[in-house]
Amino acid sequence: MSRFLNERISGLKPYVPGEQPKEREYIKLNTNESPYPPSKMGIEFANSEAQIAQLYPDPDCKELTELVANELGVKKSQVILTNGSDEVLNFAFMAYCDKNTPAVFADITYGFYKVFADVNGIESKIIPLKEDFTIDVNDYINQNGTVFIANPNAPTGILLSLDQIEKVVKSNPNRIVVIDEAYIDFGGQSAVKLIDKYDNLLITQTFSKSRSLAGARLGFGVANENIISDLMRIKYSTNPYNVNRLTLGIGKGAILEKEYFKSNCEKVIRDREFTKNELIKLGFTLTNSSANFLFAKTDKIGGKELYLKLKEKGILVRHFDVDRIKNYIRISIGSAEQMQKFVLAVKEILEEI
Amino acid sequence: MSRFLNERISGLKPYVPGEQPKEREYIKLNTNESPYPPSKMGIEFANSEAQIAQLYPDPDCKELTELVANELGVKKSQVILTNGSDEVLNFAFMAYCDKNTPAVFADITYGFYKVFADVNGIESKIIPLKEDFTIDVNDYINQNGTVFIANPNAPTGILLSLDQIEKVVKSNPNRIVVIDEAYIDFGGQSAVKLIDKYDNLLITQTFSKSRSLAGARLGFGVANENIISDLMRIKYSTNPYNVNRLTLGIGKGAILEKEYFKSNCEKVIRDREFTKNELIKLGFTLTNSSANFLFAKTDKIGGKELYLKLKEKGILVRHFDVDRIKNYIRISIGSAEQMQKFVLAVKEILEEI
Repeated sequence: MSRFLNERISGLKPYVPGEQPKEREYIKLNTNESPYPPSKMGIEFANSEAQIAQLYPDPDCKELTELVANELGVKKSQVILTNGSDEVLNFAFMAYCDKNTPAVFADITYGFYKVFADVNGIESKIIPLKEDFTIDVNDYINQNGTVFIANPNAPTGILLSLDQIEKVVKSNPNRIVVIDEAYIDFGGQSAVKLIDKYDNLLITQTFSKSRSLAGARLGFGVANENIISDLMRIKYSTNPYNVNRLTLGIGKGAILEKEYFKSNCEKVIRDREFTKNELIKLGFTLTNSSANFLFAKTDKIGGKELYLKLKEKGILVRHFDVDRIKNYIRISIGSAEQMQKFVLAVKEILEEI
Repeated sequence: MSRFLNERISGLKPYVPGEQPKEREYIKLNTNESPYPPSKMGIEFANSEAQIAQLYPDPDCKELTELVANELGVKKSQVILTNGSDEVLNFAFMAYCDKNTPAVFADITYGFYKVFADVNGIESKIIPLKEDFTIDVNDYINQNGTVFIANPNAPTGILLSLDQIEKVVKSNPNRIVVIDEAYIDFGGQSAVKLIDKYDNLLITQTFSKSRSLAGARLGFGVANENIISDLMRIKYSTNPYNVNRLTLGIGKGAILEKEYFKSNCEKVIRDREFTKNELIKLGFTLTNSSANFLFAKTDKIGGKELYLKLKEKGILVRHFDVDRIKNYIRISIGSAEQMQKFVLAVKEILEEI
């Protein structure tokens, strides 16, 4: 740190992304990436855009915003595209929290919420998950702050039903409720259809997981058009060209090649269920995940030890050194072949101990 | 605006980017883009990265950071890559200003400084340029805030010498001085060589102009490694994957194809001088621009009127509706052919009035 840094930033604990070691080839099941490449059409569009990358992108991202809106069955004025969904989440903290309006979220959830609150100088009101890691929506009724719920939640993968989400949104008519649907395409039901009914609902989604574009950085928010106009104010006050041409191109293909997207989601769900069943046979306890990852523990070996032993065998999973979940590992769903190798490695490890 | 938006964001006046009308084909001389396409090598690298865009980019951007550092003759730990230079500028406002530390900048300069100050809830201390639009560096000595100077300045294009820059940096040993060198490659001398001598100097640059990548969004900061570590804290607290894979690829080519970059800069300088001389012959007054644009006025026609008449003829330039400069237009330097057409159009307009 330099001697010039202000107090707020000096006090931050930045987010720690999943490791990306380079010393050997790993089967990467640690950052919830898709095992499938981007759509071919998207790669072609990105290549066309690259040829004219001397020109600024359209700051309004009209074409892709319209495609996303059509895909979701909403109006163009109800969508904002951002540099990953992290950006639209940060915008929501900037817009809807302040010194009198804390951010309200679970103790076990996407680790970035706390960081966004801190970087924006906002208080966090943290609500513990129940013993079984589920969210009790009654805990989120009538809040005095802006509510952030990941649905399905991370790293548990546990899904709330649309009714439960609606209960939270309805009971906080004077507060914004943000539903972070990064993993919604792997079996959940999106709350997008509620945006015309509730003017306090903001939904965020990402192209990173189900649309195979973690490397292109593309996310979006969906809400009542007044909320979108708030977020546009922030975009035009921080980085009007936040989404670049190449990403807009590759994102376009990801929307247009709809069958490819659907079939990839189906494969991930199939391989998740396969892996889950195998782990249960091996004595693991798992949360009921509706995401592209599993969250699993066993009495036979600690979470950190299992993570380390898998790493030795060339397989990366994620372990969080956090009290309530330190016995667990989070396993992203790779290809069928990768998941077979993972199950085999786990078997070997359990036999060795 | 929604009824939920907090006071700080409600009060903002967002930045207004140059217009991008779609109703007809224009000769675009209004957003300081390069008239030359990105390097071929960069396009190929971007295409390779697109094939594996399902994987997150390296959050440390090691490979490209090293290339940029080598190109500048500094250490890797002295460089941070960002989503355009707007992002690193915003980081500087976040890190080095607060309620006791205003941002100090000129009345006529990059319009985003005021917006960055406002979005971060920071006071702006605005120092008027001299009558001839030059910066008097004595006005920036011993400041009680963080200094932001665009060099060359925008939209005037006027350059400060390295000695003048050093005077400002040296006289503010306990304040950060940010030198925004977005246009430095068109004839200026960079202050990069001063970073080992002064721990309070942050330089920002961009690939948008001289490296033909406005559409790919890539900028960077260069400074003492403690400053870079401050900015990294903010990156990892807002958007760790801020620079996507495709942009990292196309940026790599832009650094490696050095001759192409140099020859494009030379062409822009040549065509700037041609255009400047033609405008002088037509009775225009111009600032002494060292950037990829000219800033010109004439007694024969007002700035807004000239902008509108050029637009009618299919040529876009930029006019700022700001008191001190409302008689001027800013003309980005396009290709030789575009500049000939521009000069011809101006001649016609002057003959018609």
